[in-house]
Amino acid sequence: MSNSYVLVINSGSSSLKFAVIDSNSGDALVSGIGECFGLPEAAISWKYDGEKTEESIPAGGNHHQYAFERIVKLLDDLNLTEKFVAIGHRVVAGGESFKGTVRVDEAVVAEIDRLAELAPLHNKANADGMRAAMAVFPSLPQFAIFDTAFHQTMPAKAFTYALPHELYDDYKIRRYGAHGTSHFFVSREAAKMLDKPAEKTNLITVHLGNGASITAVKDGQSVDTSMGLTPLAGLMMGTRCGDLDPSVIEFLIRKGWDSEKIFETLNKKSGFLGVSGLTSDARGIMDAVDAGNERAKLAFEVFTYRVAKYIGSYLVALDSLDAIVFTGGIGENSLPIRSEILNNLKILGFVEDAEANADARFGKSGVIAYSELLGAQAIVIPTNEELVIAQDCVNLL
Amino acid sequence: MSNSYVLVINSGSSSLKFAVIDSNSGDALVSGIGECFGLPEAAISWKYDGEKTEESIPAGGNHHQYAFERIVKLLDDLNLTEKFVAIGHRVVAGGESFKGTVRVDEAVVAEIDRLAELAPLHNKANADGMRAAMAVFPSLPQFAIFDTAFHQTMPAKAFTYALPHELYDDYKIRRYGAHGTSHFFVSREAAKMLDKPAEKTNLITVHLGNGASITAVKDGQSVDTSMGLTPLAGLMMGTRCGDLDPSVIEFLIRKGWDSEKIFETLNKKSGFLGVSGLTSDARGIMDAVDAGNERAKLAFEVFTYRVAKYIGSYLVALDSLDAIVFTGGIGENSLPIRSEILNNLKILGFVEDAEANADARFGKSGVIAYSELLGAQAIVIPTNEELVIAQDCVNLL
Repeated sequence: MSNSYVLVINSGSSSLKFAVIDSNSGDALVSGIGECFGLPEAAISWKYDGEKTEESIPAGGNHHQYAFERIVKLLDDLNLTEKFVAIGHRVVAGGESFKGTVRVDEAVVAEIDRLAELAPLHNKANADGMRAAMAVFPSLPQFAIFDTAFHQTMPAKAFTYALPHELYDDYKIRRYGAHGTSHFFVSREAAKMLDKPAEKTNLITVHLGNGASITAVKDGQSVDTSMGLTPLAGLMMGTRCGDLDPSVIEFLIRKGWDSEKIFETLNKKSGFLGVSGLTSDARGIMDAVDAGNERAKLAFEVFTYRVAKYIGSYLVALDSLDAIVFTGGIGENSLPIRSEILNNLKILGFVEDAEANADARFGKSGVIAYSELLGAQAIVIPTNEELVIAQDCVNLL
Repeated sequence: MSNSYVLVINSGSSSLKFAVIDSNSGDALVSGIGECFGLPEAAISWKYDGEKTEESIPAGGNHHQYAFERIVKLLDDLNLTEKFVAIGHRVVAGGESFKGTVRVDEAVVAEIDRLAELAPLHNKANADGMRAAMAVFPSLPQFAIFDTAFHQTMPAKAFTYALPHELYDDYKIRRYGAHGTSHFFVSREAAKMLDKPAEKTNLITVHLGNGASITAVKDGQSVDTSMGLTPLAGLMMGTRCGDLDPSVIEFLIRKGWDSEKIFETLNKKSGFLGVSGLTSDARGIMDAVDAGNERAKLAFEVFTYRVAKYIGSYLVALDSLDAIVFTGGIGENSLPIRSEILNNLKILGFVEDAEANADARFGKSGVIAYSELLGAQAIVIPTNEELVIAQDCVNLL
């Protein structure tokens, strides 16, 4: 298994990320992203051998297809095409159909297409990416890795909405969650840090990035998570509103808003961006807080308070807690956000180690707080979803 | 102040409750309800001197008006019209305009009418009830008591949705909560039981009835609550869905559902009724659980788990916890539901006193569990919203 490389593809609604990953170390031989598809600023960039290259994408045509062909040519030019032994596709919505990673065939692609009603923008792009990859690399095994798979162990009491049961029976409306690959990865890393078997570890994993979600992990399995039918629910995010009184939508409809405007607002104009009126980026928010901006301060307070409340709520999904695990761009790097979340958790006994918190950044793990009351730590662990995807592929080969 | 009676009016969307309340004891001289307005089975009933009387309401006409006139005649016939010194109107939505009980005048009624966009069915009926009462009893002082007033102390981090800030600036879209009168009442009663000043008491008050909500009470003030812009949000209820991924609504719109059908479903066909497919009544659910019905069991589990999660989350709104307080029809009476909620709270140290739990029912208060970990009790306190309304009126006279 030494030096088995996997091409990891993450095809989004208006972007295409790729990387050739060493399935042992998680290191990338090459990695890049095509983004802003459909816009004049569409571009593709990559890092290889310490250097970054960027090219614009010409206007018109199918930018997903353009980017994919450019990646294929790049891998050829770099003599990497023979390097990888499999292609791993990250898929947002696996519904109840996919409880783990599967080898891609026509039936799998068709099912991913069908599940697009759970993630309209993403699953279509995922399926298209698979078809394109299968056409170019017909003899290479391809795998689909689902963001929802880790959460398929949730019990019914956690995944059932208090809606008419027919909506589950007929449409499979339920909580699916997302970020499963990340929650899985950091839960395994946390078990190693705690020197406990993963299947005896009880955690609350807190993935805070532009998207944000939080998972209760009992005996190594996801038993509850904050994202719902879609990734809109749960925590406040960069541009997403998270949990909301459903009547807000009725209110806006009565004000004359149409459905498209409403869900565009909840998905793309809310969260940090909406509350602050400034930016969706947590670093920008913290700069504005430092500069005395009141709305940025409110956004910071709403965000951290809601994360802390979710942590409190997920305690009841566990018999005991070994650790809270912070990960994701914000969770791995934002000292003031972690600090304020811990501050909100004082009643649960958490005491921040300010020095350790300042130290656990930029890719460094660390224990940043401890609760004597719960016998639990708060730790930081950088996530590595690509590594999970690469390892899943190699393990299934 | 001895023997000051108040006529309490609770005018709902299709019902009208009334009672003449002793503002010292909370006892009712007479109490009754007109219900099923607009339907063939519309009727009015009342209890007086230990006897219950029921009359049907003739089809056609304005049933609110009919019922109100019938009540006036009844109070006349019973020689009670001279008994009461004020009229207290319960109002669902006070928005940010009303932070406490106010004396009713034309301007107040107009503002309550305007706030109907926050509670379309209820506030209109409340305002109509006030106009009718002012016409019949022009010389009697009338007061409006708001379900939202107790929650007006919530900090911005608790009442702000992660939406574009303009939605708050322009439309006042935010969390308002409800059941404030009940949460206020039991928080004061709990302080007495705990022998602490109310303003130094930290509580989580859990009102579980056909509507259900939960409030974090810090130093005697509401600092967070589960209902939102409207009473649809938060806990699962008799027929309401509570918290929900907003994308579920987008999903149903794409399936061809119109807005009216969606919000009718979320408000009237969800909750216990929707999950069980049987009944909105918790007693019916528990009977079905005992009979081995799987869906009823799921409804019971979803309901109790969600209550427990809210309790966990509201810990972080407090510096310390004195007690969890159960109230409302379910909270005061349902032994198995309280028991399962406490069972979900084991990680927070709560140990149920099964005998005390079995004892605290049918109007009896009691301490039913204790957490050594948090130094907190779980107690049952019957609510009495009419008493708060009557006392507010008398105090303001």
